Amino acid sequence: MTLPPLTTIAALRQALDQRRVSAHELTQDAIAKARLGCAFATIRALPGRDGPLAGIPLAHKDMFDRPGEAVGMGAHASAATIGTGTATVLDRLDTAGQVDIGRLRMSEFAMGPSGHNAHHGMPDNPVVAGAITGGSSSGSGVAVAAGIVPAALGSDTGGSIRIPAACNGVVGFKPTQGLVPVDGAMPLSWTQDCIGPLAASVGCALQILEIISGRHFPTVTGFLRIGLLSGPMQASASAAMQAAMADVAQELARNHHRLTYLPLAFFDDLTEPANVIAISEAATIHADRLRLHSGTYGPQVRARLIQAAAIPAQSYLRARQIRRAAQRQMAEVFTTVDVILMPTLADVPPQAGTVDIGNDPQLDRVIAGLTRFTRPASLLGLPAISLPVAMVQDRPLSLQVIGPPHQEARIATIAAQIETIMALRPTHPFAA
Amino acid sequence: MTLPPLTTIAALRQALDQRRVSAHELTQDAIAKARLGCAFATIRALPGRDGPLAGIPLAHKDMFDRPGEAVGMGAHASAATIGTGTATVLDRLDTAGQVDIGRLRMSEFAMGPSGHNAHHGMPDNPVVAGAITGGSSSGSGVAVAAGIVPAALGSDTGGSIRIPAACNGVVGFKPTQGLVPVDGAMPLSWTQDCIGPLAASVGCALQILEIISGRHFPTVTGFLRIGLLSGPMQASASAAMQAAMADVAQELARNHHRLTYLPLAFFDDLTEPANVIAISEAATIHADRLRLHSGTYGPQVRARLIQAAAIPAQSYLRARQIRRAAQRQMAEVFTTVDVILMPTLADVPPQAGTVDIGNDPQLDRVIAGLTRFTRPASLLGLPAISLPVAMVQDRPLSLQVIGPPHQEARIATIAAQIETIMALRPTHPFAA
Repeated sequence: MTLPPLTTIAALRQALDQRRVSAHELTQDAIAKARLGCAFATIRALPGRDGPLAGIPLAHKDMFDRPGEAVGMGAHASAATIGTGTATVLDRLDTAGQVDIGRLRMSEFAMGPSGHNAHHGMPDNPVVAGAITGGSSSGSGVAVAAGIVPAALGSDTGGSIRIPAACNGVVGFKPTQGLVPVDGAMPLSWTQDCIGPLAASVGCALQILEIISGRHFPTVTGFLRIGLLSGPMQASASAAMQAAMADVAQELARNHHRLTYLPLAFFDDLTEPANVIAISEAATIHADRLRLHSGTYGPQVRARLIQAAAIPAQSYLRARQIRRAAQRQMAEVFTTVDVILMPTLADVPPQAGTVDIGNDPQLDRVIAGLTRFTRPASLLGLPAISLPVAMVQDRPLSLQVIGPPHQEARIATIAAQIETIMALRPTHPFAA
Repeated sequence: MTLPPLTTIAALRQALDQRRVSAHELTQDAIAKARLGCAFATIRALPGRDGPLAGIPLAHKDMFDRPGEAVGMGAHASAATIGTGTATVLDRLDTAGQVDIGRLRMSEFAMGPSGHNAHHGMPDNPVVAGAITGGSSSGSGVAVAAGIVPAALGSDTGGSIRIPAACNGVVGFKPTQGLVPVDGAMPLSWTQDCIGPLAASVGCALQILEIISGRHFPTVTGFLRIGLLSGPMQASASAAMQAAMADVAQELARNHHRLTYLPLAFFDDLTEPANVIAISEAATIHADRLRLHSGTYGPQVRARLIQAAAIPAQSYLRARQIRRAAQRQMAEVFTTVDVILMPTLADVPPQAGTVDIGNDPQLDRVIAGLTRFTRPASLLGLPAISLPVAMVQDRPLSLQVIGPPHQEARIATIAAQIETIMALRPTHPFAA
């Protein structure tokens, strides 16, 4: 089985410019689709100014401020804040012309990689019946995969853009730490929070990232040195994932890129410190609310925050030391290769029943399993694109392209090449 | 009682240039004095290159690397490290010509504001019999006050330059956080560690700071807006301290500076977060050694490090939030005044018996008491000069001049003016 290709921003732009459809029709159509599904917390239409996105419907994770609007954050209704200003990322998209049609569901306070939400339930995965949507940008993944919008902002602290992108078979782009302004966005972990797009294609994701970062990322020419994850970490991925990686590698080599196999054994030591930093900072942000209103947290998030309150300062600081050392080690790696290719998840998206376990004692293990391949880039602050490369037993399989800090142009170039090459294969999600 | 004025670098320079004394004689004289006292851990003579300090004997806290030399850090002999390179601060002083005559005693691992040292004892205070030397740069304060050297490097994380300066009646200059390179120096708390001089005069201290920072701090002209600490924190200082502050204030007003009285009530909320940050970072640095060799720590330092291991990450992160908020608040204050004047200690230096209490349960209270007036500038990262302004019952009394980040020139100008004005008073430590 393959999926119908998703409509891109460029295709909508062309249809609008050629007057094959009006902005009003596009908006009404998107809203109608949004109403049928379960990806949205709020539906409304806010037309932007004139610009490259004029008339293009988008929607974003329910964590960005707009004046007077409730920011739900996937939490209990009593937790909602009312925005005073407009988050910079939304302001930049408004200026570019977007029609913002609503606020998308998410894991409670952006905590949780499965998409599980004790208050609102998990949206249905539109690509794989019964599979998790992934989180925390669950609604963003669903809204793009369901063809409601060509792109949607999410946020990624440990994989929260890339995991739902992979689960729903769309592209997810986590930029370099610090590239995109986070003001007016709900904070989770100031050391690792990144805002970025989930989108119908690498091109769509790049266009949105250029707008929200205010930067231009031109295509990189020439052949690159590509490091492929190998060794025990790669061997722990599914046979299907290893086959897909080998397949992509072969195509890249055929296109004259130079391949190097890297075990990157230290990556497996980064999941734990990444989690320690994220959860310690989250617990600090939530300390007052947790003390006063602990009953309004879902059991999974409450359990994780209470657990985090017991993390010693030394463990947090040790995690930061590991981070600095790993960043130096990674800089060395990037003297020998230009980008890294590795899985986003160990396999295709799992069924909800196997990982959506509330606050079961297995919770930590499940979370660590889902974020094992995404946390390294988060801890290291590196830009990473997740993109689907194959359908395996009707489920999408996704890889990440990771680069040095601020080399968004480079990873987007390689990701777009992989997208183009793999779309010709019968196993590609959108193969004709 | 007053004290004989200390010999400055400028006076030694002149004596050398006029050939009234040779560099060899100066060095031999300093070494002879050093041997008589108890400020030194190691005595030897390392002549520097030709420069403004050529032939001038200095000595420094036993925490800076030199190739092949044991760095004792005031600790058990088994803790000593052997330097491989030369600490940048020593290298710069060598280049300027100093004759480095030895390594000065200090509190164990620079932890402890009284000067107490379980391994080596506290040096004698050369100015006040039986009083604490203050710490952690205890030997630096003593070596300068005893006239062995005109200046000595110390380090200051919560008051470790300013407190021994005040206890021994000399000048202590803690620079802006980050101004002076710390490579090759023993770390204690990377957020607050600062290297700076204790010296015979404000001029000596400034000259040394210019050399170790590689910057020039020209005298500031014109009249400044001077904020004087008032309110409950100031009222908690001794009557003698309040009288000295009032006296200095009157003289500054007479010299056309404009005075403002500031309660700075938030300063009293900064001691605790400053300590939480310092001790959490110290415990992280010492974690491995404490686990493997806890028996080699003195009981006071061991107790503090073990206590620190239980500080939650949330408390550390909350302390950092308080720091950021206080830095913003301080920036506001510095729009209304140019410098702040406040006590260094609440009173004259206390007798050793009252504060040198090992690991008594009162330890935290005693440490908090000694550092109450010094920790705010440490947490805020501000430059601060402590200088003696009066002798009260044969004990020196010292004030701090504190400025905005990187305004070393401004605080040195005001401190030098206070030094000049107060030297004319019969109550000045070095009054003729």
